[in-house]
Amino acid sequence: MEKWKRSARLVDMTKQLMAQPHQLIPLTHFAQKYASAKSSISEDLAIIDEVMSSEGYGTLETVTGAAGGVRYIPQMNLAHAKKVLEELCERLSNPERILAGGFLYMSDLLGDVNLLDKIGHIWATVFAKEKIDVIMTVETKGIPLAYAVAYYLRVPVVIVRYDYRVTEGSVVTVNTITGSSRRIKQLSLSKRSLQEGSRVLIIDDFMKAGGTIRGMIELLGEFNAEVVGVGVMVDSPAEEKLVDSYVSLVNITQVDTKQRQIHVEFGNFLHLEGMKHEEN
Amino acid sequence: MEKWKRSARLVDMTKQLMAQPHQLIPLTHFAQKYASAKSSISEDLAIIDEVMSSEGYGTLETVTGAAGGVRYIPQMNLAHAKKVLEELCERLSNPERILAGGFLYMSDLLGDVNLLDKIGHIWATVFAKEKIDVIMTVETKGIPLAYAVAYYLRVPVVIVRYDYRVTEGSVVTVNTITGSSRRIKQLSLSKRSLQEGSRVLIIDDFMKAGGTIRGMIELLGEFNAEVVGVGVMVDSPAEEKLVDSYVSLVNITQVDTKQRQIHVEFGNFLHLEGMKHEEN
Repeated sequence: MEKWKRSARLVDMTKQLMAQPHQLIPLTHFAQKYASAKSSISEDLAIIDEVMSSEGYGTLETVTGAAGGVRYIPQMNLAHAKKVLEELCERLSNPERILAGGFLYMSDLLGDVNLLDKIGHIWATVFAKEKIDVIMTVETKGIPLAYAVAYYLRVPVVIVRYDYRVTEGSVVTVNTITGSSRRIKQLSLSKRSLQEGSRVLIIDDFMKAGGTIRGMIELLGEFNAEVVGVGVMVDSPAEEKLVDSYVSLVNITQVDTKQRQIHVEFGNFLHLEGMKHEEN
Repeated sequence: MEKWKRSARLVDMTKQLMAQPHQLIPLTHFAQKYASAKSSISEDLAIIDEVMSSEGYGTLETVTGAAGGVRYIPQMNLAHAKKVLEELCERLSNPERILAGGFLYMSDLLGDVNLLDKIGHIWATVFAKEKIDVIMTVETKGIPLAYAVAYYLRVPVVIVRYDYRVTEGSVVTVNTITGSSRRIKQLSLSKRSLQEGSRVLIIDDFMKAGGTIRGMIELLGEFNAEVVGVGVMVDSPAEEKLVDSYVSLVNITQVDTKQRQIHVEFGNFLHLEGMKHEEN
């Protein structure tokens, strides 16, 4: 086994850590791969940690002991998150998005992997401290966001279906009333996709009254699963919110179809403990 | 501006390059950020390139001239790709996947971000040389795969809908006959989601006769867009294939519901020039 130089080790370790966020990598893995002493590996990790921290990419978390190792915890500082969401607000307030009925076209944003990557990084920061087993979303538009977060937290995604197919096997179905149109919708989740007692983070693109998310929470009840948190990209005013506690990135306060103006501001993510700490 | 040490530069450059695959980063960006001479930056990049190449992560591509810079081209060598797909074959051949009617449950695989990440890396290798503007898929199961590739190629994703919603704006719709059930399905794509003349990579999870993909190709014709390639994760035998040219990762040759056996083998990706070259 050839001994690696520090420069090559730093490149390789940075790559491996970044490619597996939140995953514990044993120090012995690095020590064996590079034929290096653990003390050298620890020095390398200190260098990587310093760059990660000072550049605002996140931190390395070291776990000591026999089952110990190191993991990369992606975090985005508040200043950077604000910049990302300012850009999102600006893009959302483009009047060309206004469709018939005051709906907004957002598919371009949900197709933009650079934006999704940043949003995933922000969500992963907000929910970094939670023990999350699974991320749940509902077809279709929530899916890109759910995976963007899942890549940073490295947990699986389950997708709730409006129309379930034969390829889902047995499903559990609940009815929910969508707040805006007051129609009844069915939400189904494959039985084998979620273990009893799972800790679940719900992610979706858009919330008005929150009927769909209310339905997902009920669905989780059927699985005896626990809701760890709810994150929506875009919040929108409603007479009554059916969901008590959620984190929104931006808030569309008004769509004026006559004046062709859209008012967008930051969502409630700003008030979160997790993000506040980052500012200090 | 403080001068960065080489060790810190290597960590930061590796992070930046990996986080933006296929994106050209000007050398001046690095030189300014680190207050370093371009010659030092070039030496750093040579170190990173050597690790990337020898470890099979991909390569750095340097573009010279005024508009020049460096980009990370993710590539997976054939040995690694085979290992990933061997694991996929093994997981797919688990008889517990067999559902009524001989369908297979695959949602767990499509929810597994570690697997998706590797599959995205493989597709990005297969299609690395193509000029791709957009990745297209169809709801729901193709979406995680399309984004997995899009993260590596850093191009946007557009999603074809079976039931389009008001939030898509004007849409173009085609009818297609799904080969297996011979039913007519509508495929719709938002008009504003795709520019005329775009070069499009089609990604989907599963193909039997290929009616859905045939429909997507017709839909692209309506946009005067060009199909650069078609990639499916799982291929399955059909009397007649409606798509001439596609790349499959694995091939389910037989589902024996009585004996409860699933036969899975490598798809045609093995015969591709791109992958073959890698082996040498």
